[in-house]
Amino acid sequence: MPTTLDRAAASPAPIEFWFDFSSPYAFFASREIETVAERHGRAVLWRPFLLGVAFKTTGMQGLTTTPLRGDYARHDWDRQARRLGVRFRLPPGHPFAALPPSRLFYWLEARDPAVAARFAKRCLDAAFIEGIALTDAETTVAAAGAIVPYPAETLIAAAAEPAVKQRLKDRTDEALRRGIFGSPFMIADGEPFWGADRLAMLDEWLGCGGW
Amino acid sequence: MPTTLDRAAASPAPIEFWFDFSSPYAFFASREIETVAERHGRAVLWRPFLLGVAFKTTGMQGLTTTPLRGDYARHDWDRQARRLGVRFRLPPGHPFAALPPSRLFYWLEARDPAVAARFAKRCLDAAFIEGIALTDAETTVAAAGAIVPYPAETLIAAAAEPAVKQRLKDRTDEALRRGIFGSPFMIADGEPFWGADRLAMLDEWLGCGGW
Repeated sequence: MPTTLDRAAASPAPIEFWFDFSSPYAFFASREIETVAERHGRAVLWRPFLLGVAFKTTGMQGLTTTPLRGDYARHDWDRQARRLGVRFRLPPGHPFAALPPSRLFYWLEARDPAVAARFAKRCLDAAFIEGIALTDAETTVAAAGAIVPYPAETLIAAAAEPAVKQRLKDRTDEALRRGIFGSPFMIADGEPFWGADRLAMLDEWLGCGGW
Repeated sequence: MPTTLDRAAASPAPIEFWFDFSSPYAFFASREIETVAERHGRAVLWRPFLLGVAFKTTGMQGLTTTPLRGDYARHDWDRQARRLGVRFRLPPGHPFAALPPSRLFYWLEARDPAVAARFAKRCLDAAFIEGIALTDAETTVAAAGAIVPYPAETLIAAAAEPAVKQRLKDRTDEALRRGIFGSPFMIADGEPFWGADRLAMLDEWLGCGGW
């Protein structure tokens, strides 16, 4: 019997969208990536991972805590939000360690990838439109609301399962092994595109088959 | 009598193009920034500074020396070059400390801003098309060649003048004071745009007057 991943691999190659739930640029890109993918007959394969683990390898640091760059980022997030016509609110204590939504995503994906995709987008909206730090399973499940057709207790228990925790670890290991060090980070037919700024190049690449 | 800077300020507000001569993304953006500026009736004000000094404030590090990100950057530079139809060659020992071209730029600018602009573009081409590390005045002057209408000895002596050194220090201080932490970093009517990836947004911003 084919697994979820087998099915994803068998469909016309999806655009992998690697991201951290605590990443504002992932939020912005999440609102455009499906339009870009659909334009080229592609699906989006949502791939949350823990950016903080990648930072340990690269020595990079979060935007908000970097002098000068943090000020620019805050200015830019407001500018991006105005351009997209969405409200933007940075969650308190940003960046937050996005373990609960990342774990729950993979638990949901094993059951229904479409539900998991909606959950991913909903969590990014909750984090950056409503400004909710998704730091525990209860908050995450409440933020997801009716999008997830499972009882809250089931989801909260799932987020604590060792196998679910391991799945996120495996995905994060996979990200590092494949050279993914930022969020969002898109891969199309093996070609890497780092950053929300690269949606236009990804679009161009998909349109012409690369150069 | 108006100084060079007074004249620049009196013309329709130019696009400030802050960059480090050792920055591949500055090289790529240097090949497009004038087209973008001209489309909106703007001039380009070339502003070399020392990115390494900014790194001391931000804690950021050079692309090539960052694990994972360095591999991506090298892949991306080749991709950008293919897209622009230019050859790309990383100078040996990259990144290099770009003191000589930066100092000579400001010495030239005080005499003829148009010559200084041509010198800036020529040095970026020398660094990244020919792969020449511009680490000393002799190499820089030789790379600039006939673009600069001064004897080589005059230029080599100029690069060592305390006042010229101080001018570069002042410009680098200005960059940090104004929140400039990367290369290229463009400013249009006070609005900051970081990175070659933001040429499209800068173009859009200039076209509509901002949002």
